Amino acid sequence: MAFHITADGKKLVTLIPGDGIGPECVEATRRIIEAAGAAVAWEERAAGASVFQQGVPSGVLPETIESITKTRVVLKGPLETPVGFGEKSANVTLRKLFETYGNIRPVREMPGVPTPFTGRRLDMVVVRENVEDLYAGIEHMQTPGVAQCLKLISRKGCEKIVRLAFEFARSEGRTKVHCATKSNIMKQTEGMLKRTFEAIAPEYPDIEANHIIIDNCAHQLVKRPEQFDVIVTTNMNGDIISDLTSGLIGGLGFAPSANIGSEVAIFEAVHGSAPKYAGKDVINPTAVLMSGVMMLRHLGEFEAAAKIENALLVTLEQGILTRDVVGDAKAVGTRAFTDTIIGNLGRQSENWRVREYKPIVLPDFPKAPDVVKAEVRRTIGADIFVETGQLPEQLGPALEAIAEGSALKLKMISNRGTKVYPSVGAMTDCVDHYRCRFIARDAAGDLNDAQILDLVQRIGSQYRWMHIEKLPEFDGEAGYTKAQGED
Amino acid sequence: MAFHITADGKKLVTLIPGDGIGPECVEATRRIIEAAGAAVAWEERAAGASVFQQGVPSGVLPETIESITKTRVVLKGPLETPVGFGEKSANVTLRKLFETYGNIRPVREMPGVPTPFTGRRLDMVVVRENVEDLYAGIEHMQTPGVAQCLKLISRKGCEKIVRLAFEFARSEGRTKVHCATKSNIMKQTEGMLKRTFEAIAPEYPDIEANHIIIDNCAHQLVKRPEQFDVIVTTNMNGDIISDLTSGLIGGLGFAPSANIGSEVAIFEAVHGSAPKYAGKDVINPTAVLMSGVMMLRHLGEFEAAAKIENALLVTLEQGILTRDVVGDAKAVGTRAFTDTIIGNLGRQSENWRVREYKPIVLPDFPKAPDVVKAEVRRTIGADIFVETGQLPEQLGPALEAIAEGSALKLKMISNRGTKVYPSVGAMTDCVDHYRCRFIARDAAGDLNDAQILDLVQRIGSQYRWMHIEKLPEFDGEAGYTKAQGED
Ligand SMILES: NC(=O)c1ccc[n+]([C@@H]2O[C@H](COP(=O)([O-])OP(=O)(O)OC[C@H]3O[C@@H](n4cnc5c(N)ncnc54)[C@H](OP(=O)(O)O)[C@@H]3O)[C@@H](O)[C@H]2O)c1
Ligand SMILES: NC(=O)c1ccc[n+]([C@@H]2O[C@H](COP(=O)([O-])OP(=O)(O)OC[C@H]3O[C@@H](n4cnc5c(N)ncnc54)[C@H](OP(=O)(O)O)[C@@H]3O)[C@@H](O)[C@H]2O)c1
Repeated sequence: MAFHITADGKKLVTLIPGDGIGPECVEATRRIIEAAGAAVAWEERAAGASVFQQGVPSGVLPETIESITKTRVVLKGPLETPVGFGEKSANVTLRKLFETYGNIRPVREMPGVPTPFTGRRLDMVVVRENVEDLYAGIEHMQTPGVAQCLKLISRKGCEKIVRLAFEFARSEGRTKVHCATKSNIMKQTEGMLKRTFEAIAPEYPDIEANHIIIDNCAHQLVKRPEQFDVIVTTNMNGDIISDLTSGLIGGLGFAPSANIGSEVAIFEAVHGSAPKYAGKDVINPTAVLMSGVMMLRHLGEFEAAAKIENALLVTLEQGILTRDVVGDAKAVGTRAFTDTIIGNLGRQSENWRVREYKPIVLPDFPKAPDVVKAEVRRTIGADIFVETGQLPEQLGPALEAIAEGSALKLKMISNRGTKVYPSVGAMTDCVDHYRCRFIARDAAGDLNDAQILDLVQRIGSQYRWMHIEKLPEFDGEAGYTKAQGED
Repeated sequence: MAFHITADGKKLVTLIPGDGIGPECVEATRRIIEAAGAAVAWEERAAGASVFQQGVPSGVLPETIESITKTRVVLKGPLETPVGFGEKSANVTLRKLFETYGNIRPVREMPGVPTPFTGRRLDMVVVRENVEDLYAGIEHMQTPGVAQCLKLISRKGCEKIVRLAFEFARSEGRTKVHCATKSNIMKQTEGMLKRTFEAIAPEYPDIEANHIIIDNCAHQLVKRPEQFDVIVTTNMNGDIISDLTSGLIGGLGFAPSANIGSEVAIFEAVHGSAPKYAGKDVINPTAVLMSGVMMLRHLGEFEAAAKIENALLVTLEQGILTRDVVGDAKAVGTRAFTDTIIGNLGRQSENWRVREYKPIVLPDFPKAPDVVKAEVRRTIGADIFVETGQLPEQLGPALEAIAEGSALKLKMISNRGTKVYPSVGAMTDCVDHYRCRFIARDAAGDLNDAQILDLVQRIGSQYRWMHIEKLPEFDGEAGYTKAQGED
C-alpha cells in the first residue's frame, strides 16, 4: 500500500468527522496526534447524514471517494443514516467500496476503568471477516412464509482473513491465534475457515494456532478471557464476539477498530454517533483516539503512536476520566480530557506498558477472480425447492411419478433440513417449503443441463418451484451435505 | 401434552444415562428426585456411543424412540458420537425426530459459586429456536472455492418460539422479554423473528417486550447482564448467546436446559460427557439435577421441584461444593454432594429464594404444513448464479447478449453481495461465483417457467450455472433484497 505523501513529507489521511459525537471525538484525536508530532496531514471530507440529506443515496460524496482513492487511509467518526434515506448505511458502503475485508478490534484493560474483570489484564484482538458470510445480504422469500438468506464463504475470503490475523499477531508480538467457527454444524462454509486456518497455520510456527467452536468461545470469553490473544472468525460470529469483548473492558468508549483492505484502511471507533451527547463535551474520545493510534502504526508512525498510548494510560491512571466511566459528578469533559492527554505526552506509566509493534506485512493477493480448480467434476443431482401445502406422503409419490422416465430420480425430501420422505418417523412440523433431492439414475454419470431442466419443467407443470441447486461432485467429493436422517 | 401414568399413579419418564459422566449425573438426579417424593417412574433406555457401536447409524435405539413416543418426557445425560461413526449426533437426531423447537436455558447466580458477577443476582433465561436457521445444515458448494449454507427462517418457526418465550416468562413470573436479532442486516430472515415478536407481544400486555440487536445483546450481557430476564432468539445467535450466559454464572456445571416440542420435552445439561472425569466421582451433577427440576415443573410436580431447588441452594450456601468450583483440595465428591442435598431436602435458605412457578401453557399449533397466503403474486425475475473466472466487465456484456430476445434482461451482477456490474467503481475482490439478476422486460408482467428456463438454457450454453432463485413479489412487495450498490 503506497501512501500519499504531501510536499512537506507528511502522510495524507482522509478525515471524516461524521455525525453526532463524531466531530468531537475526531477533533480530540486530531489535536492529540498533531501534538504528538506525527508526520500526518489531513484532507477533510464528508459522509453520513448531511450527505444523505443532500440527496446522495449512498451517503458518501464523490470527492470523499476520490480522496480515499488517493490517500488510502481514512480516520472517521460514526455516520448516521437519517430515517427515510434508504436502507444501506454509508459505513457499509465505504467498507464494500474499498473491500476492507478485515475488521480488527483490539481490547485491553485500561487503568482506572473498573469492570468485573479488572486486574486480569485482558489484552486481545478479534479479527473479523468483513465482507462475506450472511452479510452479503442475499435474501429471497422462498414462499410467503419462509425466508432464506445465503451464507457465502469463499476460500479466498478465508485465506485473506487468516493471513491477516497471523500477520497482525506477529506485528504486535502476540503468540496465539484462535480460529472460532461452527464447523461442527456447517462443515462446508464454517468448515472452510477452519480448514484454511489449519492449512496456513504451519507457515507461522512462531504462533500457537488453536481452533475453538464459536459457542464455546463465547463461553470462555466470559469465564476465562485471559486465555485469548487473537481470535479470527467469520463475519456474523465476529460481529457478536467482538461486541462481547468490548463489553469486557469497559464498553464502547474504549473500543477502537480498523477495517483493513489490500488497498485502503479505514480507522474508526466501534461506537455510533450517540446523538444525545452531541456537542455536550461529555463523551469519551478514547475509542476514536485509539483508532487513530492504530492508524499511526499502519502509517509506520510508531513513535507518535506509542507516545499517545503512553500519555493516555498515564491520564487514566491519574484518575482523569470521562462521564461514561465515573458518572457526571467526578468526570472531566471531553476537551479537558484531551488537554490532559496532550499535557501527558512524553510521560510513561510505571504499571501500564505499551506493546512493541513491528510493521505489519499485509498479505498480497492477486486481483483476478479467485478460481479454485477441480481436476474432475460432475453433476450428480439437483435439489429442487417447491412450495406446497401437501404433506410429505402426498408430495413424495407425486414427485416420483413426475420423475419417471427422466434422467433423475427422487432420493428424499426434507423440510427445514430434516428428512421427511421417505419417512423416518420424525414428528417434523412442516412448513410449505420442501427441498426435493433428485439424483442421477446413472450413478456413474454426469448430468447435463438439458436433463436437469427437463425435470424442472416436469415439476413446474404440477408444483410451484422457486429455487434450484445443482449437486456437484468435485474430485470425487460430494459438494453438498446430507439432510438430517438422510443416508 | 398427555403424560403416561403408571398403574401406581406416577408419571413415566424415559431416562437415558448417556456417556462419560452422564450416568453419574443422571444417577445423582434420580436419587434426589426419588428422595424428594416426586410422583415419577423411570423407563431406562439407551442412546449414544454404545448404540452407535452396535451399528445403529442414528445412535438411538428403536426401543428408545418407542419409549419416548409413549412417555413424551426424557431426562438424559450427554451423548457421544464415537469417532468413525458418521457425522450426525444422536442429540440432534433426538431433537429433530421429536421436533423440540424450543431450547430453554436458564441461568442464575448460585450461592458459593464465585464469578466476576457475584452479588448481582443474575437470573435469566435464553429461549433459543432449536430446529431451523443455519442448523438445517443445507450446504452446497457453489464452485470448488465457494461454499453456501442456507439460513431458513419460517413464520411458523418464529411464532412458535416467540409464544413459547412469552408463555415461559409467564409461568415463571418473569416480566420482560428481549427479542435479539440481526434484523438490520438480514431484513427478511432475522427480520421475520423481529416482526413476529412485535406482532405477538401485544397479546402479553403483562410482559415488557423489547427488541435488541444481537451484537449489542452480547455486549450488554457482559456489561449489564442484570437488565435481562428472558431473551428469545434464532438458533445460531442463541447458540452463542446461551453459552455466553452459562459462562456468567459459573460454567457448565450449573447450566440446565429443556428442549420443548409440542409433543415431547427433553431435559438435559448443556455440558457434554467430559470423558476424562467419567467414573471418578468428581463431577458436578447440578446441571443435570436442575434439568430434572425443570422436568418436574413440566410434569406439574411443583412441590418436589421447589424442595429440590431449595435443598440445592442450602447445600451450596453451606459451602458443600464440587471440584469445578473450589478445586480438588476443598471439594466434596459427586456422591457426597448428592447425599448432602438429599439430607437438606425440606430445608430452605434465608438468602436464596426459589421462584413461584405456574404451569406453563404450551402454545398449540396445527400439524398441517404451515401456509402463509399471498393474495396476489407474480414472478418478476430470477437470480442465476454462475461460475466463471471472467471479470464482471466481460461477464456483463456477454450475459446481456445472451438474454437478447428473451423475456428477461440483465439488471445487475453481484459478487458476494456487492454489485460489480454495471460498475459502481468499487474495489471489489471477486471470487468465481457471480449472482446475475435478471428481471422481466415487461415490468408489469408475471414470468412463467418456460420464460425463465429459456434464459437458463441460453446461459447454460455458454456459462456454468449451479443455482437459480426466482424473484417473487407477494402482495406487491418484493420478496428479495437488493445487492449492496443496487438501486
Ligand atoms: N461505524 C459507525 O459509523 C456506526 C456504528 C454504530 C452505530 N452507528 C450509528 O450511530 C447512531 C447511534 O447508534 P446507537 O445509539 O445504537 O449506538 P451508539 O451511538 O454507539 O451509542 C450507544 C450508547 O453507547 C454509549 N457511548 C457510545 N459512544 C460513547 C462515547 N464515545 N463516550 C461515552 N459513551 C458512549 C452511550 O451510552 P449511555 O447512553 O449508556 O451513556 C450511548 O448512548 C445510529 O444512527 C447508528 O446507525 C454508526
Ligand atoms: N447434549 C449432549 O449430549 C452433549 C453436549 C455437548 C457435548 N457433547 C459431547 O460430549 C463429549 C465431550 O465434549 P466436550 O469435552 O467438548 O465438552 P464437555 O463434556 O462439556 O466438557 C468440557 C469441560 O467442561 C467441564 N465440565 C463439563 N461438565 C462438567 C460437570 N458436570 N462438572 C464439572 N465440570 C464439567 C470440564 O472442564 P475442565 O476440563 O475445565 O475441568 C470439561 O472438561 C463430546 O463427545 C461431545 O460431542 C454432548
